Amino acid sequence: MSVKREEPGTLLSFRPTIKVLDATIRDGGLVNNFAFRDEFVKALYQANIAAGVDYMEMGYKADKDIFDESKFGKWKFCREDDICSIVGENNSPLKLACMADVGRTNYERDICAKANSPLDMYRIATYINTIPAAIAMIEHCHKLGYETTVNIMAISNATEKELDIALELLGQSPVDVIYLVDSYGSIYPEEMRVIASKYLEAGAKYGKQIGIHAHNNQNLAFANTIESTALGVNYLDATMSGMGRGAGNCAMELLLGFLKNPKYKLPHVLRFVEEQMPRLREEGAVWGYDIPYLLTGVLNRHPSSAIRFIAEKRTDFVNFYQELLDQD
Amino acid sequence: MSVKREEPGTLLSFRPTIKVLDATIRDGGLVNNFAFRDEFVKALYQANIAAGVDYMEMGYKADKDIFDESKFGKWKFCREDDICSIVGENNSPLKLACMADVGRTNYERDICAKANSPLDMYRIATYINTIPAAIAMIEHCHKLGYETTVNIMAISNATEKELDIALELLGQSPVDVIYLVDSYGSIYPEEMRVIASKYLEAGAKYGKQIGIHAHNNQNLAFANTIESTALGVNYLDATMSGMGRGAGNCAMELLLGFLKNPKYKLPHVLRFVEEQMPRLREEGAVWGYDIPYLLTGVLNRHPSSAIRFIAEKRTDFVNFYQELLDQD
Repeated sequence: MSVKREEPGTLLSFRPTIKVLDATIRDGGLVNNFAFRDEFVKALYQANIAAGVDYMEMGYKADKDIFDESKFGKWKFCREDDICSIVGENNSPLKLACMADVGRTNYERDICAKANSPLDMYRIATYINTIPAAIAMIEHCHKLGYETTVNIMAISNATEKELDIALELLGQSPVDVIYLVDSYGSIYPEEMRVIASKYLEAGAKYGKQIGIHAHNNQNLAFANTIESTALGVNYLDATMSGMGRGAGNCAMELLLGFLKNPKYKLPHVLRFVEEQMPRLREEGAVWGYDIPYLLTGVLNRHPSSAIRFIAEKRTDFVNFYQELLDQD
Repeated sequence: MSVKREEPGTLLSFRPTIKVLDATIRDGGLVNNFAFRDEFVKALYQANIAAGVDYMEMGYKADKDIFDESKFGKWKFCREDDICSIVGENNSPLKLACMADVGRTNYERDICAKANSPLDMYRIATYINTIPAAIAMIEHCHKLGYETTVNIMAISNATEKELDIALELLGQSPVDVIYLVDSYGSIYPEEMRVIASKYLEAGAKYGKQIGIHAHNNQNLAFANTIESTALGVNYLDATMSGMGRGAGNCAMELLLGFLKNPKYKLPHVLRFVEEQMPRLREEGAVWGYDIPYLLTGVLNRHPSSAIRFIAEKRTDFVNFYQELLDQD
């Protein structure tokens, strides 16, 4: 009755091909406008190295002509010298990643050759209708020497046909990893297994790794992540204490508690969470499972209305549910 | 690749055989020593009726010779007249349940004939080594006219052989429903599907329904509940806002957001949560996913040490993890 794995691995074994990516600064930055103290980012960098995490995402490479630099912390822009002020030459096994949104990054101007950057990987975030633009960015980053991923957002609103075409196009691109993203936290494990199998099939056909980035609107981010892992998804996104927009992400402490790879060391994550996360909450950052996010998840909506509901300190859940239904 | 269901039902259809049980007063009572205000219990009773919930568990039938009545609220003891003061003659489709622990209930003295009680169902909670005593209680309650369930606790510490024997014994008893209980919140969905299949096989052999009672230590209570449901588990425990010992249970609002049965009406649950749960938290009740519960779940331990850690307002997670490991 249990799901058969496509690669060897049981609850007591592990796949060395699994990679864990810490997205705390990038997805968590959406909570606090990227206003992280340097001390926090340095402690996170050290914790990730000690815990055996494979990648750390430093933030976005946003276009300064589109976003006012005075309104965001520096990790919205990920300048090379800002990264170096944290990691030096990054003499560690931890690789560094940066996200670039289609249409919000001046990649030809702002992304320099890998030889001149501490970054190892660019993650291209795209909607399904901007895949051609995403592929142009992938090719650009690939030529500059970076590893690349593509994160297709809002797939719960795409048709199966659209997704098939997208995976075919991306399979033929030089991208290394194709990410399954549950943007609205609307996907149940049963559906997630079907979608992950589709991605894995495309990945096997074109020699691409598959990743997962889950949201916790229905308290399913961890469940969806480990269910996908069992099928062969190898790149796993997580954040400290699940910090991320709205209901947040798969929590690093849950994920490292589950993975059996001996390289991963949970106590270093626990120490970081213990020492660093309370102050972040005291400073006003709000995230995590709550009923408004559950409702946007159930209804397959963007979490923005739930974020607003919580920011306004409203608690009239029944009215909010009706407002969401009235938008149909 | 998706798990095949043993009964018809897809994400857009539903099984009329599904029954939802609200365990807020019983499992939630472990958080606040059953000190619920009558107004709260009445509002919960009304909300459950309006939401289409099938069963409401009123509390425990604990033995007054073992537990000091002055130290617990009345729902620890579930006297018939206390129940009637809330529900009158219960002229509603909502059935009422009560839990009786093996060794902690004087069932021959305290459980009266169904004709003289507003209760419809007794739920017998047992460890695997007290199954014979549980069967005596099941037979007693069955003869008195009640529906019965048996909830086998702490199965993550039982051997497969022990569980096989227990299911055979219970299959031959008059019990109506056998509950799969993840007492420590230690079971992953992949394991849960295997265990649920084992219970369902025994249930099919002996004509018993299977139920699930999940805990949220690893944020998996909802995922494990709906994964079991997809395989044919029909009796589903949930509590308002997930209220329950330690990390709590599967949240009713998550479960009713998922179930497609048109009889279930989420807004009535949302209204109850909105109007009643904040005051309960203000009164000092503490429950819900937190790192200490994650750690007891990962290590397959009783949550008591995590509950103590949180009650003492400790936040040194690394030390706590080492303390748990040192107990091995």
